Amino acid sequence: MANVSIIGIGQTPAGEHWETSLRHQALQAVQAALADAGLRTVDAIVIGNALAANISDQNHLGPLLADFAGLRGVEAMRVEGADASGGLALRQGYLMVASGLVNTVMVLGVEKVTDVIGSERVGAVASVLDSEYEAAHGATPVALAALLMRRYMHEYGVGLAEFANFSVNAHANGSKSANAMYRNLIKADRFASAPIVAEPVNLFDVAPEADGAAAVILTSGERAADMAPRPVRILASAAATDTLALHDRPDPLHFAALNAAVMKAFAQANITPDQIDVLELHDMSTIVSALSLEASGFAPRGAGWKLAAENRIGLTGDLPISTFGGLKSRGNPLGATGVYQAVEIALQLRGQAGANQVPGAAVGMAHNLGGLAATAVVHIFA
Amino acid sequence: MANVSIIGIGQTPAGEHWETSLRHQALQAVQAALADAGLRTVDAIVIGNALAANISDQNHLGPLLADFAGLRGVEAMRVEGADASGGLALRQGYLMVASGLVNTVMVLGVEKVTDVIGSERVGAVASVLDSEYEAAHGATPVALAALLMRRYMHEYGVGLAEFANFSVNAHANGSKSANAMYRNLIKADRFASAPIVAEPVNLFDVAPEADGAAAVILTSGERAADMAPRPVRILASAAATDTLALHDRPDPLHFAALNAAVMKAFAQANITPDQIDVLELHDMSTIVSALSLEASGFAPRGAGWKLAAENRIGLTGDLPISTFGGLKSRGNPLGATGVYQAVEIALQLRGQAGANQVPGAAVGMAHNLGGLAATAVVHIFA
Repeated sequence: MANVSIIGIGQTPAGEHWETSLRHQALQAVQAALADAGLRTVDAIVIGNALAANISDQNHLGPLLADFAGLRGVEAMRVEGADASGGLALRQGYLMVASGLVNTVMVLGVEKVTDVIGSERVGAVASVLDSEYEAAHGATPVALAALLMRRYMHEYGVGLAEFANFSVNAHANGSKSANAMYRNLIKADRFASAPIVAEPVNLFDVAPEADGAAAVILTSGERAADMAPRPVRILASAAATDTLALHDRPDPLHFAALNAAVMKAFAQANITPDQIDVLELHDMSTIVSALSLEASGFAPRGAGWKLAAENRIGLTGDLPISTFGGLKSRGNPLGATGVYQAVEIALQLRGQAGANQVPGAAVGMAHNLGGLAATAVVHIFA
Repeated sequence: MANVSIIGIGQTPAGEHWETSLRHQALQAVQAALADAGLRTVDAIVIGNALAANISDQNHLGPLLADFAGLRGVEAMRVEGADASGGLALRQGYLMVASGLVNTVMVLGVEKVTDVIGSERVGAVASVLDSEYEAAHGATPVALAALLMRRYMHEYGVGLAEFANFSVNAHANGSKSANAMYRNLIKADRFASAPIVAEPVNLFDVAPEADGAAAVILTSGERAADMAPRPVRILASAAATDTLALHDRPDPLHFAALNAAVMKAFAQANITPDQIDVLELHDMSTIVSALSLEASGFAPRGAGWKLAAENRIGLTGDLPISTFGGLKSRGNPLGATGVYQAVEIALQLRGQAGANQVPGAAVGMAHNLGGLAATAVVHIFA
């Protein structure tokens, strides 16, 4: 097993940062991570970003952000896999360190979505779907999540209200976090009657797109022992894909890519689902949360919603999820989301999660998805 | 030293493929590489692509191209670093195999630029520069190359005609390759009077943007010995960055990122410049060729143009470059270029370059640049 650890973390609050550009967001997260690690530089930067080309007319983030963040000259590149860009960047950083050829890697997730609004934003976000067979017909990720949710409700006889606690829990946790975008509480009995986004998915169900940047610094476990008070080890890293177009899947309610990545990760870490103390899943919509729990062995098929309905996902529950608000309340900074998840799990395992602390958290798992789970990236941390 | 080898190669002709989409280009290269290696699948796909988001409204190429190329489910992701995307993808594939955690990796470079023309194409291409400080003022990569060339001519007292042989050589080599975009010969005495693109850079000087796809399959040297008649070993892999904006560099005529990457690569491979039998450099414009030769130890500063002017860069010269036409004649498929370079060097080292063969080629080097050498990726093969 490779011996790679997180030795520094940094993040900016997720939200609508009208006054702060892409590069300034990146700068803040990079500087915070360097300060946390007690380092002045790194050997390489891997950047997770989904939409800068579409929204900011800016490709080639590697040299731009390396230079702007004070690391001119350092090897740098961007990894893109829609909302899973951050998780994929983390995986590449992990493999770089595991190779023994790169000592210390900064994994930076950054997204700036508020530079455009309306149809331009919708078009950019839809570019993560199959542009010729989905987006060209008006599909968006939320619209496809709505199709999945309707099918699920039909297939299993579950009502919309049964999903409420995913959002109630996310906002309860997010209300205690200074980095969360929406810190209001959601009442379970108001969930099903919120304004519709794409029927049956509504405003209390779907995660908001956010600006934000987060960074983690990776190095080998041997070096980590000398460098940080509490290195967080990456026990497993795995990725897989499914068809990009949802309609090409034989069984759309089964997230096959997530299932494959999770199984690989459990095998790599040699642990079982009951050993996971904290799970940051990709709660872009409550149906995605339910299907993620089912694909990853935490619930049987058709029963993922029960973990929420039975109040088992809170900070002191069987399986705490969205512990800092998740995508729903912290916000979904698209290509940065996977790195936010890593930062949040590191805080939990270090015992530095404050009001969001899961008592005794020792093992954490992150699911970062792109599109409707067309890309799945899974990490296990300890 | 890591032991990683190329065991399969594939490419499509570079050119204007109006009838073939991004995904069909990718399919052809992937299938060719699998056939060459005698494999049916791989463990991961790393995709180098620069502009699909801008030109085809298509992000998230990982699952799209894995599925379309017949490799549904396989781990897949995109790496982006402008024109250096392909080289960066190759480097990531190399590090994945070197880690020992991924056995066999397909590195796929693919670009489809002809879906848009005119100002839309220019805007997309300019997105690899600093969008706020360069592109917003109308700069394009060719316009910046023109500034470099004018400065070089002033600084060293060199005339435009002295650069002619870079293009004459590229087209002489490309004229013999079925995969080259422009197979016409260029006459040295016509070079300086060709129609201007961005003064002093003209049509005979600058490389054309092209559609195209190329793929190489990597595995560890131990496995390679059982799998392919002539594995091509990657002796070194290195990358570095410079400021993205050209005006931020203290010495714009020095490609600092390329210099850093080349020095690392020579050290890693433990060889010297005189041991390089074939050099595929990033000849997007003759000034970039000259500055690349200077930054990488093949010529003193101010003298890079002499290697061309003295006819030393031909297939039987001291330092053969652009052996299948380079970016100038084969065409510049942007994010795929770095993978084309690897395929071409593999053909040379396997002795399968046909009419383009460099006699006795045993060691090859590739320089893949993004922007005006803001990203530099260097590989050495044997």
